[in-house]
Amino acid sequence: MIKAGIIGATGYAGGELVRLLLNHKDVEIVWFGSKSYIDQKYSQVYQNMFRLVEDVCRDDQLEQLAGEADVIFTATPQGFLAGLLTESILSRAKIIDLSADYRIKDVAVYEKWYGIQHRSPQFIKEAVYGLCEINRGKVNPNTRLVANPGCYTTCSILTAYPLVKEGLIDVNTLIIDAKSGTSGAGRGAKVQNLFCEVNENMKAYGVASHRHTPEIEEQLGYAGNCQVTLSFTPHLVPMNRGILVTEYAALKKKPDGTLPTYEEIKAVYDHYYGAEKFVRVLDKGVCPETKWVEGSNYVDVNFVIDGRTGRIIMMGALDNLVKGAAGQAVQNMNLLFGLEEDEGLRLVPCFP
Amino acid sequence: MIKAGIIGATGYAGGELVRLLLNHKDVEIVWFGSKSYIDQKYSQVYQNMFRLVEDVCRDDQLEQLAGEADVIFTATPQGFLAGLLTESILSRAKIIDLSADYRIKDVAVYEKWYGIQHRSPQFIKEAVYGLCEINRGKVNPNTRLVANPGCYTTCSILTAYPLVKEGLIDVNTLIIDAKSGTSGAGRGAKVQNLFCEVNENMKAYGVASHRHTPEIEEQLGYAGNCQVTLSFTPHLVPMNRGILVTEYAALKKKPDGTLPTYEEIKAVYDHYYGAEKFVRVLDKGVCPETKWVEGSNYVDVNFVIDGRTGRIIMMGALDNLVKGAAGQAVQNMNLLFGLEEDEGLRLVPCFP
Amino acid sequence: MIKAGIIGATGYAGGELVRLLLNHKDVEIVWFGSKSYIDQKYSQVYQNMFRLVEDVCRDDQLEQLAGEADVIFTATPQGFLAGLLTESILSRAKIIDLSADYRIKDVAVYEKWYGIQHRSPQFIKEAVYGLCEINRGKVNPNTRLVANPGCYTTCSILTAYPLVKEGLIDVNTLIIDAKSGTSGAGRGAKVQNLFCEVNENMKAYGVASHRHTPEIEEQLGYAGNCQVTLSFTPHLVPMNRGILVTEYAALKKKPDGTLPTYEEIKAVYDHYYGAEKFVRVLDKGVCPETKWVEGSNYVDVNFVIDGRTGRIIMMGALDNLVKGAAGQAVQNMNLLFGLEEDEGLRLVPCFP
Amino acid sequence: MIKAGIIGATGYAGGELVRLLLNHKDVEIVWFGSKSYIDQKYSQVYQNMFRLVEDVCRDDQLEQLAGEADVIFTATPQGFLAGLLTESILSRAKIIDLSADYRIKDVAVYEKWYGIQHRSPQFIKEAVYGLCEINRGKVNPNTRLVANPGCYTTCSILTAYPLVKEGLIDVNTLIIDAKSGTSGAGRGAKVQNLFCEVNENMKAYGVASHRHTPEIEEQLGYAGNCQVTLSFTPHLVPMNRGILVTEYAALKKKPDGTLPTYEEIKAVYDHYYGAEKFVRVLDKGVCPETKWVEGSNYVDVNFVIDGRTGRIIMMGALDNLVKGAAGQAVQNMNLLFGLEEDEGLRLVPCFP
Repeated sequence: MIKAGIIGATGYAGGELVRLLLNHKDVEIVWFGSKSYIDQKYSQVYQNMFRLVEDVCRDDQLEQLAGEADVIFTATPQGFLAGLLTESILSRAKIIDLSADYRIKDVAVYEKWYGIQHRSPQFIKEAVYGLCEINRGKVNPNTRLVANPGCYTTCSILTAYPLVKEGLIDVNTLIIDAKSGTSGAGRGAKVQNLFCEVNENMKAYGVASHRHTPEIEEQLGYAGNCQVTLSFTPHLVPMNRGILVTEYAALKKKPDGTLPTYEEIKAVYDHYYGAEKFVRVLDKGVCPETKWVEGSNYVDVNFVIDGRTGRIIMMGALDNLVKGAAGQAVQNMNLLFGLEEDEGLRLVPCFP
Repeated sequence: MIKAGIIGATGYAGGELVRLLLNHKDVEIVWFGSKSYIDQKYSQVYQNMFRLVEDVCRDDQLEQLAGEADVIFTATPQGFLAGLLTESILSRAKIIDLSADYRIKDVAVYEKWYGIQHRSPQFIKEAVYGLCEINRGKVNPNTRLVANPGCYTTCSILTAYPLVKEGLIDVNTLIIDAKSGTSGAGRGAKVQNLFCEVNENMKAYGVASHRHTPEIEEQLGYAGNCQVTLSFTPHLVPMNRGILVTEYAALKKKPDGTLPTYEEIKAVYDHYYGAEKFVRVLDKGVCPETKWVEGSNYVDVNFVIDGRTGRIIMMGALDNLVKGAAGQAVQNMNLLFGLEEDEGLRLVPCFP
Repeated sequence: MIKAGIIGATGYAGGELVRLLLNHKDVEIVWFGSKSYIDQKYSQVYQNMFRLVEDVCRDDQLEQLAGEADVIFTATPQGFLAGLLTESILSRAKIIDLSADYRIKDVAVYEKWYGIQHRSPQFIKEAVYGLCEINRGKVNPNTRLVANPGCYTTCSILTAYPLVKEGLIDVNTLIIDAKSGTSGAGRGAKVQNLFCEVNENMKAYGVASHRHTPEIEEQLGYAGNCQVTLSFTPHLVPMNRGILVTEYAALKKKPDGTLPTYEEIKAVYDHYYGAEKFVRVLDKGVCPETKWVEGSNYVDVNFVIDGRTGRIIMMGALDNLVKGAAGQAVQNMNLLFGLEEDEGLRLVPCFP
Repeated sequence: MIKAGIIGATGYAGGELVRLLLNHKDVEIVWFGSKSYIDQKYSQVYQNMFRLVEDVCRDDQLEQLAGEADVIFTATPQGFLAGLLTESILSRAKIIDLSADYRIKDVAVYEKWYGIQHRSPQFIKEAVYGLCEINRGKVNPNTRLVANPGCYTTCSILTAYPLVKEGLIDVNTLIIDAKSGTSGAGRGAKVQNLFCEVNENMKAYGVASHRHTPEIEEQLGYAGNCQVTLSFTPHLVPMNRGILVTEYAALKKKPDGTLPTYEEIKAVYDHYYGAEKFVRVLDKGVCPETKWVEGSNYVDVNFVIDGRTGRIIMMGALDNLVKGAAGQAVQNMNLLFGLEEDEGLRLVPCFP
């Protein structure tokens, strides 16, 4: 059995990790880390775990945990892991970090968008960006540190990736309009996240300044082998789970001056995702809906070509706590330990 | 592999059966019955099943299905199964009926509350009321026909059962105030179930006349070995899943004239449910919440003794589509085929 | 113009007072009190008031405010007003208190249920319990202090009042099962009120111990001229506004041993409420729904007689922020100043 | 008193018209037209109107109604009014049409996008596009026929109008990503609009093909005095009311090669909307939220300049049933009859 420790186990992503790992046949959770609830029973914080988890919450002692666990998941605020990570820890336990600390290769970009100093830039190079469908080859038993992509980024990148990779769209025209359920905002007690403030309400936030922007730009830049500067606008929507992205870009014309056809674009998506378990390219005319992937590790994607404007509208949907956080982390863990990639992740989406 | 057929596979309970059976290691679904969607791909009706189910929907031919399946689940309107069931069918396939057709032993009571004639009363006696925690002994490989209890009834009965069985409450004072999410109303296209009619709204319905009343009375009557006449009031609440019941009854005084203590009542609940996997008696002071059981087969119960009024307030929560329908049906199937009772049902509740 | 000051103007009830008073032709708001937002623009706290309110929030200086306002609304935590109220204040401005400080005549009962010491019991006797439909005669230009009833109590009392008053039910059997939207929990930043904790969830709380219980008992006791001890169970439901109560009681039999008829009970309700603008006795068979009164000052009530159990099930619905708080406060203000009782309250419920 | 008739009074927009007109001091509703509910009491269809409306629903006899009403509101499906309108009707009563029948001047464009033949194209030219803030001058006592803009279009147009009018953006880059609550889908009984299908779900629909696209293009074309071809993508969001649009466009550089500043763009918005009662240009950094305009006739707009991409992100929010339908219709009626433009529309947004 793989011994797993979770730092930040009482946040929403941490709770989802517990849900998934409890049903993972090769894993045992040995550490429920939660600074806010030290010595309280985990199942008193998350009553759904009553009689399923008997452990109490423990402090965030990464050094000690590295001696007890084979893998550590950090579902913690930005800067937390960067401030504590050491070679000693990394040499003893694999780390899957759900924060953004090691996602961005250029430390100056990280520090500018996040507004904090990076305390351990020496590990950035080693960290693998754990978007399994794209970087699967780099996530293997030799890997020590995985930067697990976030919800907006996973959805945004996977939705556009095949077209950027194949150079079919003008990346400078790429606009990502993203909508998120509220669990992405975390479990902190803030007035703006109260039921009555969120329910029956919609808004954009972080306009032209959201921290996930440079991460999407960097990864799509690798795909397209070019510099990408795009617009990314997140929105808050009154639901618990789910990310939906709607992406707009100018399609490049073919040499004969015409736009690519539906079949041509579909073939490109199928080329990249046809064999992927967790990415489903939907049938023609079907728009992704967040409810159809809820509780599962799927990303549903599709597209519409708009001949009038010459644009393609790409759409993607995922569950922000599964494929956008805990599910992807487990997928990375499976790869790190040489298990079946979908072990513990054969979740059927729950409807309604 | 057990071959399972589902009649009514495109209703919400039918869809939940598909979700559960897809992850059941001993079962293969061989028939997706849906009169409304014959010859359409099942995954076009429930897009969450895209790439998970390739079958098309088929007609409701029970006779034919009985030759192809080991077990048939009927998630159909009242009267449907009663109108079609024959000895020939029953002799070839086990039936788990999610409708009310064989739940009530007194056919006159059935016909009065449901307002329809029962077409096959000859099978009522044979049918086992499949509330596993109470009737487990009667659901076994010799059983042919299981009347699977509904959502309101399962929650209402299990919440009060230990106290009725032990004669601790005055059953004539029992009042059940039940609240349900909207999936219990089914997938029919009715104005009253539109999003805008249900959202931000609450109401009682079927006051003093709801069909689940006599079923609860009958089963609690068996438990208490007495005639039970109670008040049952269902309410519609703006959420997808979940039943919450709040039950009120006068506690009988002990010979010394005092009320039973918390510890005494707790011991009774623990006696009946301490070894039950799917019934969780919560810690003192914790009220059941529907979210804590969502997506799982658990029923959470608890109680408060009110010394001022001499009443006990009992509370229970379950997911109406799992323990209240499809999960309980799978639990019954496991018993019918001698499998582990929780096979395919080790679902961790999903939060948030 | 009546000059009105609001203490606690940035809570939900305070915000609703602002909404109502802005459209009241005889009132001008002169003081937006909010300890948490002193010197901030009110419209930055409640952006709906942008360009409608230009004032900044001010401190809670009751003494000063009494010199500037004709009427002061206190939408403040329990104990706040009791700790500050003086004869000097009362002699200069009328007070409408939306807290519970002066609702309960027996100070020992108040102190027991609220767990705090009452700092100004000398004003309790003078305070008028401002349930206008019942105490209209006592709310007049000579009244200085109104204890404005809360949401649960207003709904609970008005739903049962006619039958208690006429002695038609056995008050010792009265059980009130109440359900509330989340705005009743206030605007405090608490984890339990976060969107993801409340949404898709239901629970009871304060079982057998909720503070509104003695207030309901006291008022119904006055109506029935008897001691009332009842069960009151509040529930939290995922919606913003709305209270729904379902009340159960044994109907007293008539001298001939039969139960009263629908028509007889209906006549009693009509006797008390037929001329009331804000209480609507619905047509036979129609259950109150919270959505039908949203945004308005109406209470909708109705009942069903259950011949099987001999009980009557009474139902009531109101908007907790209007008739359950700010609307009733304005109604009381109108009476205090001799205005039309419905001035500023001719609000048509908003659907959907 | 102006006598008003409503055809389609039992749809959501029709119901909202009733709500608004009941509180309009100069109007009396003389005809509640509803084909589906003929001879039923209106207040049985919309229980919120109990004791407020005593009328029964009547058939859609436009000719007869024209003799009884001064103004007729048609809240009806596309093609309905076009199929019935005659000179005789128009000569006797003013018409405010909430459908799209007379919004698009080019009948070929209408017929292509709506897929139906226009039955009375002779009235198209006369019809005034009733976006009051832009066409106020054309809506006056001499006007007979107003094409009342819809929810998506009102919000989309007003959000971008000042910048298009002043030529500050490249209209060919304009992308409108719109999100709507579910009341916009109407009250028809469709599976896709059931609570359980919409709740906890998000999706795009009508991608690159939504009927409101040509209407927005036409009106912005008038503003910019140019041909406009844009991308418009509507999304369905789980809430009752509210439209939010997020619009993206390349800002034109100034002669010196720099982008316009925040202050320069703000000045343009203020120039057009500073004196408008119903359009609120928010303070810097505040994003429009649908909840802040709910129940009112306001449109809240704002923008962010993104120096990195050279784009401006414009945002707008309104209540689709008020400013997006019934409120705007009343605003047009006020102009048609020479009343104060905001008569009956001084609604304070309702929060929460």
